[in-house]
Amino acid sequence: MTERSTIDISLSDIARKSGLNSALVKYYFGSKNGLLLALVKDVLGKGIQQMDGLLEMELNPVEKLKLHVKAIINVYFRFPYVNRLIHYMFEDPELGREVAETISKPLAETQRLLLEDGIAKGVFKPVDPMMFYFIILGACDQLFFGQHILRSAFGIAEIDDNLRRRYTATLLDVILIGIVADKPAG
Amino acid sequence: MTERSTIDISLSDIARKSGLNSALVKYYFGSKNGLLLALVKDVLGKGIQQMDGLLEMELNPVEKLKLHVKAIINVYFRFPYVNRLIHYMFEDPELGREVAETISKPLAETQRLLLEDGIAKGVFKPVDPMMFYFIILGACDQLFFGQHILRSAFGIAEIDDNLRRRYTATLLDVILIGIVADKPAG
Repeated sequence: MTERSTIDISLSDIARKSGLNSALVKYYFGSKNGLLLALVKDVLGKGIQQMDGLLEMELNPVEKLKLHVKAIINVYFRFPYVNRLIHYMFEDPELGREVAETISKPLAETQRLLLEDGIAKGVFKPVDPMMFYFIILGACDQLFFGQHILRSAFGIAEIDDNLRRRYTATLLDVILIGIVADKPAG
Repeated sequence: MTERSTIDISLSDIARKSGLNSALVKYYFGSKNGLLLALVKDVLGKGIQQMDGLLEMELNPVEKLKLHVKAIINVYFRFPYVNRLIHYMFEDPELGREVAETISKPLAETQRLLLEDGIAKGVFKPVDPMMFYFIILGACDQLFFGQHILRSAFGIAEIDDNLRRRYTATLLDVILIGIVADKPAG
């Protein structure tokens, strides 16, 4: 998917590329949907586990939120197809439920706990976690999802590590100073 | 597209729905791509013109940015397919150039002038306009683009006017207080 910049890949494409025959791929994953789900769980599953760990860490909520946002952007950077894939999967009701249960809900839940911890500690202003979820996910994703726009409207052909870092820093500046309470004037 | 929640519509679907024959539709727009471009220009063109007007208004930059963000969200609210359609159009190099020239570049340019005016007046902190463009567009879009997620992960079946208003207010709070200089402590 990364190679071709599309999620429109067939089981036989995957078989050919992996050197396996498509019956074997089908045997392992059941169907193309089964394979997509395994892929998304593999790509995002570790991130989700690390996020659980984040909540338990001895860090202030601002640092936790920074790590959380960096982790999301890094996933998009490494797997630019992943958001498109998730939206594609949500178009199938059954797959959508699976993705919601294993990916979207745990991610939203971690974010909610992180925000509420920060709000309780007086570090963050009150903010609706659901709204924040869509703001953050949309902002994290857009640079990657909008690569055509990056190229056509801004003349930038590729997202390199430097751009990723600048984007992360800008996003964190905009978002964080927006929700951190008790900031000094100026 | 709104009716079917998909951008996968053929010229003959449009002809059937509009009661015209598809030869006539083809005569007017040249091709499906010609029709899509006319649609996007019609939906977004007026918004772009109003945005030009915004720059000339006797308003402070914060109020201008509020109107700008509200206008973007209103477009997504009224035409939920429009962002998906634009991304689809960017996959065709020629169409992509047209969309970049008529939509993305003027929008990014208006935003840049608006930000730079505010920065020059000391109302906004310095912020990279390109980064800000992707942050804002992604955040505005995600609630609408992620309607499947809204349904599956948050149990909300529809974006009504109340949700749209709350989302706009939260996004503006998060973004604005993040970039407005000289805010009072607390």
